[in-house]
Amino acid sequence: MFLNAIVPIEDTEVTPIRAARGRVLASQIIAPRDEPNYRRAAMDGYAVVADDTLGASERSPVALKIGDDVRRGVVSRVHTGSKMPDQADAVVMVEDVERLDDVAEIRAQAHPFENVGLKGEDVGRGELIFHPGHRLRPADIGLLAALEVPDVTVYRRPDVAIIPTGEELVGGSPAEGEVVETNGLMNALLVEQWGARYRYRNIVPDVRELVEAALLRDTDADLILTTGGTSVGIRDLVSEAVQKLGKVLVHGIAISPGKPTALGFVEDTPIACLPGFPVACLVASYAFAKPAINRLAHVEREFERTVTGTLAGKLTSKPGSRTYARVALRDEHVEPIMISGSGILSSMAKADGFVIIPENVEGYDEGQQVEVVLFD
Amino acid sequence: MFLNAIVPIEDTEVTPIRAARGRVLASQIIAPRDEPNYRRAAMDGYAVVADDTLGASERSPVALKIGDDVRRGVVSRVHTGSKMPDQADAVVMVEDVERLDDVAEIRAQAHPFENVGLKGEDVGRGELIFHPGHRLRPADIGLLAALEVPDVTVYRRPDVAIIPTGEELVGGSPAEGEVVETNGLMNALLVEQWGARYRYRNIVPDVRELVEAALLRDTDADLILTTGGTSVGIRDLVSEAVQKLGKVLVHGIAISPGKPTALGFVEDTPIACLPGFPVACLVASYAFAKPAINRLAHVEREFERTVTGTLAGKLTSKPGSRTYARVALRDEHVEPIMISGSGILSSMAKADGFVIIPENVEGYDEGQQVEVVLFD
Repeated sequence: MFLNAIVPIEDTEVTPIRAARGRVLASQIIAPRDEPNYRRAAMDGYAVVADDTLGASERSPVALKIGDDVRRGVVSRVHTGSKMPDQADAVVMVEDVERLDDVAEIRAQAHPFENVGLKGEDVGRGELIFHPGHRLRPADIGLLAALEVPDVTVYRRPDVAIIPTGEELVGGSPAEGEVVETNGLMNALLVEQWGARYRYRNIVPDVRELVEAALLRDTDADLILTTGGTSVGIRDLVSEAVQKLGKVLVHGIAISPGKPTALGFVEDTPIACLPGFPVACLVASYAFAKPAINRLAHVEREFERTVTGTLAGKLTSKPGSRTYARVALRDEHVEPIMISGSGILSSMAKADGFVIIPENVEGYDEGQQVEVVLFD
Repeated sequence: MFLNAIVPIEDTEVTPIRAARGRVLASQIIAPRDEPNYRRAAMDGYAVVADDTLGASERSPVALKIGDDVRRGVVSRVHTGSKMPDQADAVVMVEDVERLDDVAEIRAQAHPFENVGLKGEDVGRGELIFHPGHRLRPADIGLLAALEVPDVTVYRRPDVAIIPTGEELVGGSPAEGEVVETNGLMNALLVEQWGARYRYRNIVPDVRELVEAALLRDTDADLILTTGGTSVGIRDLVSEAVQKLGKVLVHGIAISPGKPTALGFVEDTPIACLPGFPVACLVASYAFAKPAINRLAHVEREFERTVTGTLAGKLTSKPGSRTYARVALRDEHVEPIMISGSGILSSMAKADGFVIIPENVEGYDEGQQVEVVLFD
């Protein structure tokens, strides 16, 4: 529901290809010319007229004159990638040639086109190279450089506003009863890793008017993430503010930890209200903020880093909830992290990733094979 | 041989934790204090003396006075994460309490310590949090922030010198017979993605003295990557220069593509001489440059992004060589990229990753399950 209601970003910008790693193409790329744009030698050796080498072998080499240009009876030294002389139609590998002054003894027969790269063999002019929505990798940028494409049109990166809420939070040193703000910081770093830009806002106290003002200030962002203030109990200012200023699509989600998460829109801006307990906050961020950013950014496919291993202990789950169990990897073993409280941030630091247990599965037994989704 | 001969970087630097994402710790982190540093409510509800709630239930609630502080007979409203009043030893969830003016009707019995987070329950003072060699993720930085650790000592990022060689190369528009330099560019972008810094040097022509000078200029780097000039044929200036200025450990490696790769040292600086054919160059970079950078950077474990799928066609391999076959992913299907030439850069752009076929395996048949290592 939430993802389907998010409209991918329309704005585009032009960027030089060298700065385009990880960016998502907003338009297709058509090859502006052939690559290579000439016939090239595919091996170090001698360019020849193939017919001249008919029957050449180790035992009966064919002697041909070495010249600057190639014609019947004359061969020329070429290097891998160099331009083929016009009349040459094959290259005999250097290993199959004995050079004696200005004569080359050819010891292997060459067939026409052997070891010759044709014009356009890599990419033909007019060929569709990349679709819109393709995220550029270093090799893609190399291909664009080869084709002399200097810059590309990409979608603007998503802007994500991160608003920590909670009057117990402080930015600096906490007194007794106070807590250092970490949820916003962690989300800022994750959002950056997920390819978006962030605005890491000041802590907003639990005052209705201040929460509403904070949300309204960031409706020009592409996505708002709040942290804290979403318990399903009494003090639930954030989702109430969302409902007032826009629409809560869902409040209370069958994931564990992360149940108090709310998803919706402030005016037209998508918002994920993440729980205040840090582990719940991170789980909800992986479950909703990351896919929301990918959708905004037009990322077609995103592959997680996963490792498969054998459980070294039982993994329990919360019945009816999709459970994100923290695990550590020791060689081939997947070890459950026993500290299960969603307030225990150190359980994330001790873990390498999640095993995600579906809502209809009652945990996994020791010895079972499981897939671990590694933390970003 | 190559990796074992590389000495990890000793230099360290101090960085604020907010800038430390992806950096590798050079020293252990010991918790400087308890987290939390006070007893906290683990639920929204009422802090109580547990004994006061003995026998409380839906049918026979216990009425207790609501006050600012807790003592026998008096309870106090608390929020998740807030400091527990000194004499309270449990929290009754808000759902189990009916409030009538200044009286709380408790409808569930609380056991001592129920819904109370103890001081130090997340991290105890003096606890070892991270070992040296740990690469910091957003959640780790959150934990450091929670513990008021402002900055960390990390290893300096590796400096990688990238030197493209080949007189056929040009930086700008190629004439016939010329080729745009792409290998160095692609390696620069990969090296950056692998957590190192790069120096992307000008193209060095195939002149012995110039190649030697270029190598000597970058012996202060942590790793040198050259591209081109490594065919096992006649024109092999680069590995000859390495042998003269240092030591070639190996030249010619049983990987396909990538066979002409040479590995060694210029003075004491590790060098990987990557082939000039772009696909071979990239394969060799994944096979040798990436692990070399990880070793320099003290990265203990690196998990690739992999996807398992079913082969939609036969994958052939070069017998006796570890073959890096390019494949594309279409849903669950793994499709071989048919264009196999190592000079065909577009085959990388069309691919999502490699299937790595061991040297003693003769390819894989259609329908077989294979693991795809996705491109960075």
